[in-house]
Amino acid sequence: MLLASWVDGKPVAVLPVDDRGLAYGDGLFETVRVRAGRVALVDGHLQRLVRGAEMLRLPLDVEALLAETRAFLAEQVAAGRPDFTLKILLTRGSAGRGYQPLPEAVPRRLLLAFPSRVWPAEYSRDGIALHECRTRLGLNPALAGIKHLNRLEQVLARAEWDDPRYAEGLLLDIDGRVIEGTMSNLFLVHDGVLVTPRLHRCGVAGVMRSFLLARALTLGIAVAERDVAREELDGADELFVCNSNVGIWPVRELGSRRYTPGELTRRLQGEVATLWSR
Amino acid sequence: MLLASWVDGKPVAVLPVDDRGLAYGDGLFETVRVRAGRVALVDGHLQRLVRGAEMLRLPLDVEALLAETRAFLAEQVAAGRPDFTLKILLTRGSAGRGYQPLPEAVPRRLLLAFPSRVWPAEYSRDGIALHECRTRLGLNPALAGIKHLNRLEQVLARAEWDDPRYAEGLLLDIDGRVIEGTMSNLFLVHDGVLVTPRLHRCGVAGVMRSFLLARALTLGIAVAERDVAREELDGADELFVCNSNVGIWPVRELGSRRYTPGELTRRLQGEVATLWSR
Repeated sequence: MLLASWVDGKPVAVLPVDDRGLAYGDGLFETVRVRAGRVALVDGHLQRLVRGAEMLRLPLDVEALLAETRAFLAEQVAAGRPDFTLKILLTRGSAGRGYQPLPEAVPRRLLLAFPSRVWPAEYSRDGIALHECRTRLGLNPALAGIKHLNRLEQVLARAEWDDPRYAEGLLLDIDGRVIEGTMSNLFLVHDGVLVTPRLHRCGVAGVMRSFLLARALTLGIAVAERDVAREELDGADELFVCNSNVGIWPVRELGSRRYTPGELTRRLQGEVATLWSR
Repeated sequence: MLLASWVDGKPVAVLPVDDRGLAYGDGLFETVRVRAGRVALVDGHLQRLVRGAEMLRLPLDVEALLAETRAFLAEQVAAGRPDFTLKILLTRGSAGRGYQPLPEAVPRRLLLAFPSRVWPAEYSRDGIALHECRTRLGLNPALAGIKHLNRLEQVLARAEWDDPRYAEGLLLDIDGRVIEGTMSNLFLVHDGVLVTPRLHRCGVAGVMRSFLLARALTLGIAVAERDVAREELDGADELFVCNSNVGIWPVRELGSRRYTPGELTRRLQGEVATLWSR
Protein backbone atom coordinates (compact mmCIF):
# COMPACT_ATOMS: atom_id res chain seq x y z
CA MET A 1 0.00 0.00 0.00
CA LEU A 2 2.80 2.41 0.90
CA LEU A 3 4.22 3.84 -2.36
CA ALA A 4 7.08 5.86 -0.95
CA SER A 5 8.25 7.34 2.35
CA TRP A 6 10.81 9.80 3.62
CA VAL A 7 11.96 10.33 7.17
CA ASP A 8 13.69 13.67 7.74
CA GLY A 9 14.25 14.12 4.03
CA LYS A 10 15.74 10.67 3.41
CA PRO A 11 14.05 7.76 1.65
CA VAL A 12 13.44 5.51 4.65
CA ALA A 13 10.48 3.23 5.36
CA VAL A 14 11.06 2.62 9.08
CA LEU A 15 11.09 4.54 12.33
CA PRO A 16 13.07 3.86 15.54
CA VAL A 17 10.95 1.83 17.98
CA ASP A 18 11.50 4.39 20.75
CA ASP A 19 9.91 7.26 18.81
CA ARG A 20 7.38 9.12 20.96
CA GLY A 21 4.89 9.17 18.11
CA LEU A 22 4.56 5.42 18.63
CA ALA A 23 4.98 5.44 22.41
CA TYR A 24 2.34 8.07 23.21
CA GLY A 25 0.88 9.33 19.94
CA ASP A 26 3.04 12.36 20.68
CA GLY A 27 2.75 14.08 17.32
CA LEU A 28 0.55 15.36 14.52
CA PHE A 29 -0.48 14.41 11.00
CA GLU A 30 -2.11 15.71 7.85
CA THR A 31 -3.68 13.70 5.04
CA VAL A 32 -3.33 15.68 1.85
CA ARG A 33 -4.84 15.30 -1.62
CA VAL A 34 -2.22 15.49 -4.39
CA ARG A 35 -3.37 15.83 -8.01
CA ALA A 36 -1.04 16.52 -10.94
CA GLY A 37 1.76 16.85 -8.42
CA ARG A 38 0.02 19.72 -6.66
CA VAL A 39 -1.31 19.94 -3.14
CA ALA A 40 -4.81 21.28 -2.65
CA LEU A 41 -5.43 23.59 0.31
CA VAL A 42 -1.75 23.61 1.23
CA ASP A 43 -2.12 26.71 3.43
CA GLY A 44 -4.92 25.13 5.42
CA HIS A 45 -2.95 21.95 6.10
CA LEU A 46 0.10 23.97 7.08
CA GLN A 47 -1.84 26.28 9.38
CA ARG A 48 -3.39 23.36 11.24
CA LEU A 49 0.01 21.71 11.59
CA VAL A 50 1.49 24.94 12.97
CA ARG A 51 -1.41 25.34 15.40
CA GLY A 52 -1.09 21.72 16.53
CA ALA A 53 2.65 22.12 17.03
CA GLU A 54 2.00 25.18 19.20
CA MET A 55 -0.59 23.34 21.29
CA LEU A 56 1.74 20.36 21.78
CA ARG A 57 4.79 22.65 22.09
CA LEU A 58 6.46 20.67 19.36
CA PRO A 59 9.24 22.52 17.50
CA LEU A 60 8.29 22.63 13.81
CA ASP A 61 10.70 23.80 11.14
CA VAL A 62 8.13 24.95 8.59
CA GLU A 63 10.71 25.90 5.95
CA ALA A 64 12.41 22.52 6.14
CA LEU A 65 9.05 20.75 5.96
CA LEU A 66 7.97 22.80 2.93
CA ALA A 67 11.26 22.26 1.11
CA GLU A 68 11.12 18.54 1.83
CA THR A 69 7.52 18.27 0.75
CA ARG A 70 8.29 20.03 -2.54
CA ALA A 71 11.17 17.65 -3.20
CA PHE A 72 9.05 14.64 -2.25
CA LEU A 73 6.27 15.74 -4.61
CA ALA A 74 8.80 16.22 -7.41
CA GLU A 75 10.16 12.74 -6.81
CA GLN A 76 6.68 11.21 -6.99
CA VAL A 77 5.89 13.04 -10.21
CA ALA A 78 9.21 11.92 -11.67
CA ALA A 79 8.31 8.35 -10.69
CA GLY A 80 5.07 8.64 -12.67
CA ARG A 81 2.85 9.29 -9.65
CA PRO A 82 1.30 12.74 -10.01
CA ASP A 83 -1.87 11.67 -8.12
CA PHE A 84 -1.68 10.19 -4.65
CA THR A 85 -2.51 10.76 -1.01
CA LEU A 86 0.27 12.44 0.93
CA LYS A 87 0.46 11.81 4.63
CA ILE A 88 2.63 14.19 6.63
CA LEU A 89 3.55 13.07 10.15
CA LEU A 90 5.40 15.05 12.77
CA THR A 91 6.54 13.26 15.93
CA ARG A 92 8.46 14.47 18.97
CA GLY A 93 11.27 12.03 18.19
CA SER A 94 13.13 9.73 20.55
CA ALA A 95 14.45 11.74 23.50
CA GLY A 96 13.79 10.56 27.02
CA ARG A 97 11.54 7.90 28.41
CA GLY A 98 8.45 8.60 30.39
CA TYR A 99 5.81 11.14 29.53
CA GLN A 100 7.92 14.28 30.04
CA PRO A 101 8.83 15.87 26.70
CA LEU A 102 12.48 16.89 26.96
CA PRO A 103 13.82 20.04 25.30
CA GLU A 104 16.57 18.03 23.58
CA ALA A 105 13.96 15.97 21.70
CA VAL A 106 14.48 16.35 17.95
CA PRO A 107 11.16 16.02 16.12
CA ARG A 108 10.93 13.73 13.10
CA ARG A 109 9.21 14.65 9.85
CA LEU A 110 7.66 11.82 7.85
CA LEU A 111 6.27 12.02 4.34
CA LEU A 112 4.30 9.02 3.10
CA ALA A 113 2.72 8.47 -0.31
CA PHE A 114 -0.33 6.21 -0.52
CA PRO A 115 -2.52 5.41 -3.54
CA SER A 116 -5.50 7.75 -3.75
CA ARG A 117 -8.60 6.03 -2.51
CA VAL A 118 -11.29 5.78 -5.13
CA TRP A 119 -14.79 6.37 -3.83
CA PRO A 120 -18.01 5.57 -5.72
CA ALA A 121 -19.12 8.56 -7.83
CA GLU A 122 -22.63 8.26 -6.38
CA TYR A 123 -21.36 9.36 -2.96
CA SER A 124 -20.88 12.89 -4.31
CA ARG A 125 -23.83 12.74 -6.68
CA ASP A 126 -26.62 11.01 -4.75
CA GLY A 127 -25.29 11.20 -1.22
CA ILE A 128 -24.39 8.66 1.43
CA ALA A 129 -25.97 6.85 4.35
CA LEU A 130 -24.51 7.76 7.75
CA HIS A 131 -24.03 5.11 10.41
CA GLU A 132 -24.84 6.46 13.85
CA CYS A 133 -21.83 5.55 16.02
CA ARG A 134 -22.25 4.31 19.58
CA THR A 135 -18.65 5.42 20.30
CA ARG A 136 -18.68 8.92 21.76
CA LEU A 137 -15.96 11.54 21.65
CA GLY A 138 -14.44 12.45 25.01
CA LEU A 139 -14.01 16.13 25.83
CA ASN A 140 -10.59 17.69 26.00
CA PRO A 141 -10.21 21.37 25.11
CA ALA A 142 -6.39 21.09 25.29
CA LEU A 143 -6.44 18.70 22.32
CA ALA A 144 -9.58 19.83 20.47
CA GLY A 145 -9.41 20.91 16.85
CA ILE A 146 -5.88 19.74 16.03
CA LYS A 147 -5.01 16.56 14.16
CA HIS A 148 -2.87 14.74 16.71
CA LEU A 149 -1.90 11.09 16.65
CA ASN A 150 -4.28 9.98 19.43
CA ARG A 151 -7.05 8.62 17.25
CA LEU A 152 -8.35 5.53 19.05
CA GLU A 153 -11.83 7.06 19.30
CA GLN A 154 -11.98 7.23 15.51
CA VAL A 155 -10.63 3.69 15.19
CA LEU A 156 -13.25 2.32 17.62
CA ALA A 157 -16.01 4.30 15.92
CA ARG A 158 -14.99 3.13 12.44
CA ALA A 159 -14.77 -0.45 13.70
CA GLU A 160 -18.47 -0.40 14.55
CA TRP A 161 -19.64 -1.20 11.02
CA ASP A 162 -18.37 -2.92 7.90
CA ASP A 163 -21.63 -2.77 5.96
CA PRO A 164 -20.57 -0.94 2.76
CA ARG A 165 -24.02 0.66 2.72
CA TYR A 166 -22.61 3.21 5.18
CA ALA A 167 -19.87 5.43 3.77
CA GLU A 168 -19.30 7.33 7.00
CA GLY A 169 -20.30 7.41 10.67
CA LEU A 170 -21.77 10.20 12.78
CA LEU A 171 -19.96 10.99 16.04
CA LEU A 172 -21.55 12.66 19.03
CA ASP A 173 -19.63 13.72 22.13
CA ILE A 174 -20.26 12.13 25.52
CA ASP A 175 -22.85 14.82 26.26
CA GLY A 176 -24.80 13.94 23.10
CA ARG A 177 -23.83 16.95 20.99
CA VAL A 178 -23.24 16.40 17.27
CA ILE A 179 -19.53 16.83 16.45
CA GLU A 180 -18.36 15.30 13.15
CA GLY A 181 -17.89 12.18 11.06
CA THR A 182 -15.14 9.64 11.78
CA MET A 183 -12.99 11.12 8.98
CA SER A 184 -14.97 14.20 8.01
CA ASN A 185 -16.69 17.31 9.31
CA LEU A 186 -20.42 17.82 9.18
CA PHE A 187 -22.58 20.72 8.00
CA LEU A 188 -26.31 21.20 8.07
CA VAL A 189 -28.46 23.79 6.38
CA HIS A 190 -31.37 25.18 8.32
CA ASP A 191 -33.54 28.03 7.00
CA GLY A 192 -30.77 29.02 4.59
CA VAL A 193 -28.09 29.16 7.31
CA LEU A 194 -25.02 26.94 6.97
CA VAL A 195 -24.37 25.44 10.40
CA THR A 196 -21.42 23.37 11.62
CA PRO A 197 -20.61 22.19 15.16
CA ARG A 198 -18.16 24.11 17.32
CA LEU A 199 -14.99 22.12 17.90
CA HIS A 200 -13.55 23.69 21.04
CA ARG A 201 -14.18 20.67 23.28
CA CYS A 202 -13.36 17.85 20.87
CA GLY A 203 -13.23 17.02 17.18
CA VAL A 204 -10.85 17.78 14.34
CA ALA A 205 -11.17 21.16 12.63
CA GLY A 206 -10.91 20.05 9.02
CA VAL A 207 -9.12 21.95 6.30
CA MET A 208 -12.12 21.56 3.95
CA ARG A 209 -14.39 22.77 6.77
CA SER A 210 -12.33 25.97 7.04
CA PHE A 211 -12.34 26.42 3.28
CA LEU A 212 -16.12 26.06 3.09
CA LEU A 213 -16.76 28.41 6.00
CA ALA A 214 -14.57 31.06 4.37
CA ARG A 215 -16.09 30.55 0.91
CA ALA A 216 -19.64 30.68 2.26
CA LEU A 217 -18.94 34.02 3.93
CA THR A 218 -17.46 35.38 0.71
CA LEU A 219 -20.57 34.23 -1.17
CA GLY A 220 -22.84 36.01 1.29
CA ILE A 221 -24.21 32.79 2.81
CA ALA A 222 -25.12 33.05 6.50
CA VAL A 223 -22.85 30.82 8.58
CA ALA A 224 -23.03 29.62 12.19
CA GLU A 225 -20.46 27.68 14.19
CA ARG A 226 -22.30 26.51 17.30
CA ASP A 227 -23.32 23.57 19.46
CA VAL A 228 -25.67 21.26 17.58
CA ALA A 229 -28.10 18.87 19.28
CA ARG A 230 -28.80 15.47 17.71
CA GLU A 231 -32.48 16.35 17.17
CA GLU A 232 -31.53 19.31 14.99
CA LEU A 233 -30.29 16.96 12.29
CA ASP A 234 -33.81 15.63 11.83
CA GLY A 235 -35.04 19.15 11.21
CA ALA A 236 -32.23 20.09 8.82
CA ASP A 237 -33.06 20.96 5.21
CA GLU A 238 -29.70 19.71 3.94
CA LEU A 239 -26.91 17.71 5.50
CA PHE A 240 -23.42 16.92 4.21
CA VAL A 241 -20.00 15.74 5.32
CA CYS A 242 -16.72 16.99 3.90
CA ASN A 243 -12.98 16.57 4.03
CA SER A 244 -10.02 17.70 1.97
CA ASN A 245 -9.73 14.35 0.20
CA VAL A 246 -13.31 13.56 -0.80
CA GLY A 247 -14.72 17.07 -1.00
CA ILE A 248 -18.43 17.10 -0.13
CA TRP A 249 -20.69 14.08 0.24
CA PRO A 250 -24.36 14.94 0.71
CA VAL A 251 -26.06 12.81 3.38
CA ARG A 252 -29.17 11.10 2.02
CA GLU A 253 -29.90 8.85 5.00
CA LEU A 254 -29.44 9.05 8.76
CA GLY A 255 -31.56 6.79 10.95
CA SER A 256 -35.11 6.94 9.65
CA ARG A 257 -34.64 10.40 8.10
CA ARG A 258 -34.11 10.82 4.34
CA TYR A 259 -32.53 13.91 2.80
CA THR A 260 -32.22 15.21 -0.76
CA PRO A 261 -29.00 17.00 -1.75
CA GLY A 262 -30.05 20.66 -1.68
CA GLU A 263 -29.17 23.84 -3.45
CA LEU A 264 -26.57 25.05 -0.98
CA THR A 265 -24.85 21.66 -0.94
CA ARG A 266 -24.64 21.68 -4.75
CA ARG A 267 -23.36 25.23 -4.78
CA LEU A 268 -20.57 24.41 -2.33
CA GLN A 269 -19.70 21.26 -4.30
CA GLY A 270 -19.22 23.60 -7.24
CA GLU A 271 -16.81 25.68 -5.16
CA VAL A 272 -14.79 22.55 -4.34
CA ALA A 273 -14.71 21.57 -8.02
CA THR A 274 -13.39 25.05 -8.87
CA LEU A 275 -10.77 24.79 -6.14
CA TRP A 276 -9.58 21.41 -7.40
CA SER A 277 -9.45 22.48 -11.05
CA ARG A 278 -7.32 25.53 -10.32
CA MET B 1 18.82 4.94 26.12
CA LEU B 2 17.33 1.90 24.38
CA LEU B 3 19.35 -1.16 25.47
CA ALA B 4 17.74 -3.79 23.27
CA SER B 5 14.58 -4.32 21.25
CA TRP B 6 12.73 -7.13 19.52
CA VAL B 7 9.93 -6.86 17.01
CA ASP B 8 7.91 -10.07 16.61
CA GLY B 9 10.67 -12.08 18.23
CA LYS B 10 13.53 -10.72 16.13
CA PRO B 11 16.22 -8.27 17.25
CA VAL B 12 15.07 -5.18 15.35
CA ALA B 13 15.17 -1.54 16.43
CA VAL B 14 12.78 -0.09 13.86
CA LEU B 15 9.14 -0.28 12.89
CA PRO B 16 7.51 0.24 9.45
CA VAL B 17 6.33 3.86 9.10
CA ASP B 18 2.81 2.72 8.21
CA ASP B 19 2.26 0.88 11.50
CA ARG B 20 -1.10 1.80 13.03
CA GLY B 21 0.51 2.18 16.44
CA LEU B 22 2.23 5.27 15.05
CA ALA B 23 -0.62 6.40 12.80
CA TYR B 24 -3.39 6.35 15.41
CA GLY B 25 -1.94 5.10 18.69
CA ASP B 26 -3.79 1.91 17.76
CA GLY B 27 -2.25 -0.39 20.34
CA LEU B 28 -1.35 -1.07 23.95
CA PHE B 29 1.69 -1.07 26.19
CA GLU B 30 3.00 -2.23 29.55
CA THR B 31 5.99 -0.90 31.46
CA VAL B 32 7.38 -3.69 33.56
CA ARG B 33 9.94 -3.83 36.38
CA VAL B 34 12.58 -6.52 35.83
CA ARG B 35 14.90 -7.45 38.69
CA ALA B 36 17.33 -10.38 38.65
CA GLY B 37 15.84 -11.35 35.30
CA ARG B 38 12.38 -11.75 36.82
CA VAL B 39 9.19 -9.79 36.13
CA ALA B 40 7.23 -8.54 39.10
CA LEU B 41 3.42 -8.74 38.91
CA VAL B 42 3.56 -10.55 35.59
CA ASP B 43 -0.04 -11.76 35.89
CA GLY B 44 -1.31 -8.24 36.47
CA HIS B 45 0.48 -6.86 33.42
CA LEU B 46 -0.74 -9.73 31.29
CA GLN B 47 -4.34 -9.41 32.48
CA ARG B 48 -4.42 -5.71 31.64
CA LEU B 49 -2.93 -6.39 28.22
CA VAL B 50 -5.56 -9.07 27.56
CA ARG B 51 -8.37 -6.77 28.72
CA GLY B 52 -7.02 -3.94 26.56
CA ALA B 53 -6.78 -6.24 23.54
CA GLU B 54 -10.41 -7.24 24.08
CA MET B 55 -11.55 -3.62 24.34
CA LEU B 56 -9.65 -2.67 21.16
CA ARG B 57 -10.53 -6.00 19.49
CA LEU B 58 -6.85 -6.54 18.86
CA PRO B 59 -5.87 -10.20 18.34
CA LEU B 60 -3.29 -11.09 21.01
CA ASP B 61 -1.35 -14.34 20.93
CA VAL B 62 -0.64 -14.61 24.65
CA GLU B 63 1.44 -17.78 24.35
CA ALA B 64 3.67 -16.25 21.68
CA LEU B 65 4.07 -13.10 23.74
CA LEU B 66 4.96 -15.06 26.87
CA ALA B 67 7.46 -17.26 25.06
CA GLU B 68 9.06 -14.25 23.41
CA THR B 69 9.22 -12.33 26.66
CA ARG B 70 10.92 -15.27 28.40
CA ALA B 71 13.50 -15.50 25.62
CA PHE B 72 14.03 -11.74 25.67
CA LEU B 73 14.58 -11.77 29.45
CA ALA B 74 17.05 -14.64 29.11
CA GLU B 75 18.95 -12.71 26.45
CA GLN B 76 19.17 -9.64 28.65
CA VAL B 77 20.42 -11.67 31.61
CA ALA B 78 22.98 -13.37 29.36
CA ALA B 79 24.10 -9.90 28.24
CA GLY B 80 24.74 -8.93 31.87
CA ARG B 81 21.48 -6.99 32.28
CA PRO B 82 19.38 -8.69 34.95
CA ASP B 83 17.81 -5.37 36.04
CA PHE B 84 16.01 -3.12 33.58
CA THR B 85 12.68 -1.70 32.58
CA LEU B 86 10.84 -3.81 30.04
CA LYS B 87 8.38 -2.10 27.77
CA ILE B 88 5.92 -4.35 25.94
CA LEU B 89 4.07 -2.80 23.01
CA LEU B 90 1.30 -4.34 20.97
CA THR B 91 0.17 -2.55 17.80
CA ARG B 92 -2.45 -3.42 15.19
CA GLY B 93 0.25 -3.62 12.51
CA SER B 94 0.20 -2.17 9.02
CA ALA B 95 -2.97 -3.32 7.21
CA GLY B 96 -5.13 -0.78 5.48
CA ARG B 97 -5.19 2.98 5.57
CA GLY B 98 -7.84 5.03 7.19
CA TYR B 99 -9.29 4.42 10.63
CA GLN B 100 -11.05 1.13 9.90
CA PRO B 101 -9.17 -1.79 11.49
CA LEU B 102 -9.13 -4.57 8.89
CA PRO B 103 -9.40 -8.25 9.86
CA GLU B 104 -6.24 -9.03 7.89
CA ALA B 105 -4.16 -6.72 10.09
CA VAL B 106 -1.37 -8.69 11.74
CA PRO B 107 -0.53 -7.16 15.14
CA ARG B 108 3.11 -6.49 16.01
CA ARG B 109 4.67 -7.35 19.35
CA LEU B 110 7.54 -5.15 20.53
CA LEU B 111 9.82 -5.79 23.50
CA LEU B 112 12.10 -2.92 24.54
CA ALA B 113 14.71 -2.87 27.31
CA PHE B 114 15.49 0.49 28.94
CA PRO B 115 17.79 1.22 31.88
CA SER B 116 15.89 1.21 35.17
CA ARG B 117 15.20 4.72 36.31
CA VAL B 118 16.76 5.52 39.65
CA TRP B 119 14.61 7.66 41.91
CA PRO B 120 15.81 9.42 45.09
CA ALA B 121 15.44 7.15 48.13
CA GLU B 122 13.66 9.94 50.00
CA TYR B 123 10.66 9.66 47.68
CA SER B 124 9.74 6.35 49.29
CA ARG B 125 10.99 7.32 52.75
CA ASP B 126 9.86 10.91 53.27
CA GLY B 127 7.33 11.30 50.49
CA ILE B 128 6.97 13.58 47.52
CA ALA B 129 5.39 16.89 46.58
CA LEU B 130 2.55 16.64 44.05
CA HIS B 131 2.17 19.24 41.34
CA GLU B 132 -1.49 20.01 40.70
CA CYS B 133 -1.92 19.71 36.92
CA ARG B 134 -4.08 22.15 34.97
CA THR B 135 -4.44 19.51 32.23
CA ARG B 136 -7.64 17.56 32.78
CA LEU B 137 -8.46 14.03 31.72
CA GLY B 138 -11.24 13.72 29.15
CA LEU B 139 -13.94 11.10 29.75
CA ASN B 140 -14.20 8.05 27.57
CA PRO B 141 -15.60 4.85 29.10
CA ALA B 142 -14.67 2.87 25.94
CA LEU B 143 -10.97 3.52 26.62
CA ALA B 144 -10.93 3.87 30.42
CA GLY B 145 -8.72 1.65 32.55
CA ILE B 146 -6.60 0.13 29.80
CA LYS B 147 -3.07 1.20 28.89
CA HIS B 148 -3.49 2.20 25.25
CA LEU B 149 -1.06 4.24 23.17
CA ASN B 150 -3.12 7.48 23.19
CA ARG B 151 -1.28 9.28 25.95
CA LEU B 152 -1.14 12.92 24.89
CA GLU B 153 -3.04 13.96 28.02
CA GLN B 154 -0.24 12.52 30.15
CA VAL B 155 2.40 14.16 27.95
CA LEU B 156 0.71 17.57 28.24
CA ALA B 157 0.22 17.16 31.99
CA ARG B 158 3.83 16.11 32.57
CA ALA B 159 5.04 19.03 30.42
CA GLU B 160 3.48 21.48 32.87
CA TRP B 161 6.43 21.43 35.27
CA ASP B 162 10.14 20.76 35.27
CA ASP B 163 10.79 21.86 38.84
CA PRO B 164 12.45 18.74 40.33
CA ARG B 165 10.74 19.57 43.63
CA TYR B 166 7.67 17.84 42.19
CA ALA B 167 8.09 14.12 41.62
CA GLU B 168 4.60 13.61 40.23
CA GLY B 169 1.49 15.49 39.18
CA LEU B 170 -2.14 15.13 40.25
CA LEU B 171 -4.71 14.70 37.48
CA LEU B 172 -8.39 15.54 37.79
CA ASP B 173 -10.98 14.79 35.13
CA ILE B 174 -12.81 17.55 33.28
CA ASP B 175 -15.57 17.42 35.90
CA GLY B 176 -13.06 18.03 38.70
CA ARG B 177 -12.95 14.51 40.14
CA VAL B 178 -9.60 13.19 41.39
CA ILE B 179 -8.36 10.40 39.09
CA GLU B 180 -4.65 9.59 39.31
CA GLY B 181 -1.07 10.79 38.86
CA THR B 182 0.50 11.27 35.43
CA MET B 183 2.30 7.91 35.73
CA SER B 184 0.78 6.48 38.90
CA ASN B 185 -2.44 5.74 40.72
CA LEU B 186 -3.52 7.51 43.87
CA PHE B 187 -4.79 6.26 47.21
CA LEU B 188 -5.98 8.13 50.25
CA VAL B 189 -6.70 6.90 53.75
CA HIS B 190 -9.71 8.33 55.53
CA ASP B 191 -10.86 7.05 58.94
CA GLY B 192 -8.92 3.83 58.39
CA VAL B 193 -10.49 3.16 54.97
CA LEU B 194 -8.21 2.84 51.94
CA VAL B 195 -9.85 4.80 49.12
CA THR B 196 -8.89 5.01 45.45
CA PRO B 197 -10.75 6.69 42.57
CA ARG B 198 -12.99 4.66 40.29
CA LEU B 199 -11.55 4.45 36.79
CA HIS B 200 -14.57 3.63 34.65
CA ARG B 201 -14.69 7.02 32.87
CA CYS B 202 -10.96 7.67 32.42
CA GLY B 203 -7.58 6.83 33.92
CA VAL B 204 -5.27 3.83 33.79
CA ALA B 205 -6.01 0.95 36.16
CA GLY B 206 -2.50 0.26 37.41
CA VAL B 207 -1.09 -3.17 38.11
CA MET B 208 0.26 -1.99 41.48
CA ARG B 209 -3.15 -0.48 42.27
CA SER B 210 -4.77 -3.89 41.71
CA PHE B 211 -2.12 -5.61 43.81
CA LEU B 212 -2.63 -3.18 46.70
CA LEU B 213 -6.43 -3.44 46.59
CA ALA B 214 -6.22 -7.23 46.70
CA ARG B 215 -3.57 -7.26 49.48
CA ALA B 216 -5.53 -4.77 51.57
CA LEU B 217 -8.63 -6.96 51.39
CA THR B 218 -6.58 -10.00 52.41
CA LEU B 219 -5.16 -8.05 55.35
CA GLY B 220 -8.65 -7.08 56.54
CA ILE B 221 -8.26 -3.41 55.61
CA ALA B 222 -11.47 -1.69 54.51
CA VAL B 223 -11.25 -0.65 50.88
CA ALA B 224 -13.37 1.66 48.73
CA GLU B 225 -13.18 2.29 44.98
CA ARG B 226 -15.33 5.36 44.37
CA ASP B 227 -15.53 8.88 42.99
CA VAL B 228 -13.24 11.23 44.92
CA ALA B 229 -13.73 15.01 45.04
CA ARG B 230 -10.69 17.28 45.11
CA GLU B 231 -11.63 18.62 48.59
CA GLU B 232 -11.45 15.11 50.05
CA LEU B 233 -7.70 15.07 49.59
CA ASP B 234 -7.37 17.94 52.08
CA GLY B 235 -9.26 15.90 54.67
CA ALA B 236 -7.30 12.68 54.06
CA ASP B 237 -5.19 11.20 56.87
CA GLU B 238 -2.70 9.67 54.43
CA LEU B 239 -2.10 10.06 50.72
CA PHE B 240 0.16 8.09 48.40
CA VAL B 241 0.79 7.34 44.74
CA CYS B 242 1.92 4.00 43.38
CA ASN B 243 2.94 2.14 40.26
CA SER B 244 4.56 -1.17 39.45
CA ASN B 245 7.97 0.41 38.89
CA VAL B 246 8.38 2.72 41.89
CA GLY B 247 6.16 0.94 44.39
CA ILE B 248 4.61 3.42 46.83
CA TRP B 249 5.56 7.06 47.25
CA PRO B 250 3.84 8.79 50.18
CA VAL B 251 2.64 12.30 49.35
CA ARG B 252 3.97 14.84 51.83
CA GLU B 253 2.80 17.99 50.05
CA LEU B 254 -0.12 18.97 47.82
CA GLY B 255 -0.98 22.65 47.50
CA SER B 256 -0.89 24.15 50.99
CA ARG B 257 -1.60 20.80 52.70
CA ARG B 258 1.19 18.81 54.38
CA TYR B 259 0.94 15.07 55.09
CA THR B 260 3.00 12.65 57.12
CA PRO B 261 3.46 9.10 55.80
CA GLY B 262 1.05 7.11 57.95
CA GLU B 263 0.73 3.63 59.37
CA LEU B 264 -1.30 2.16 56.51
CA THR B 265 1.06 3.61 53.89
CA ARG B 266 4.04 2.05 55.70
CA ARG B 267 2.27 -1.27 56.02
CA LEU B 268 1.52 -1.41 52.31
CA GLN B 269 5.10 -0.37 51.49
CA GLY B 270 6.10 -3.43 53.49
CA GLU B 271 3.84 -5.57 51.32
CA VAL B 272 5.50 -4.20 48.17
CA ALA B 273 8.95 -4.91 49.62
CA THR B 274 7.85 -8.49 50.33
CA LEU B 275 6.49 -8.83 46.80
CA TRP B 276 9.72 -7.57 45.28
CA SER B 277 11.97 -9.77 47.44
CA ARG B 278 10.10 -12.96 46.54
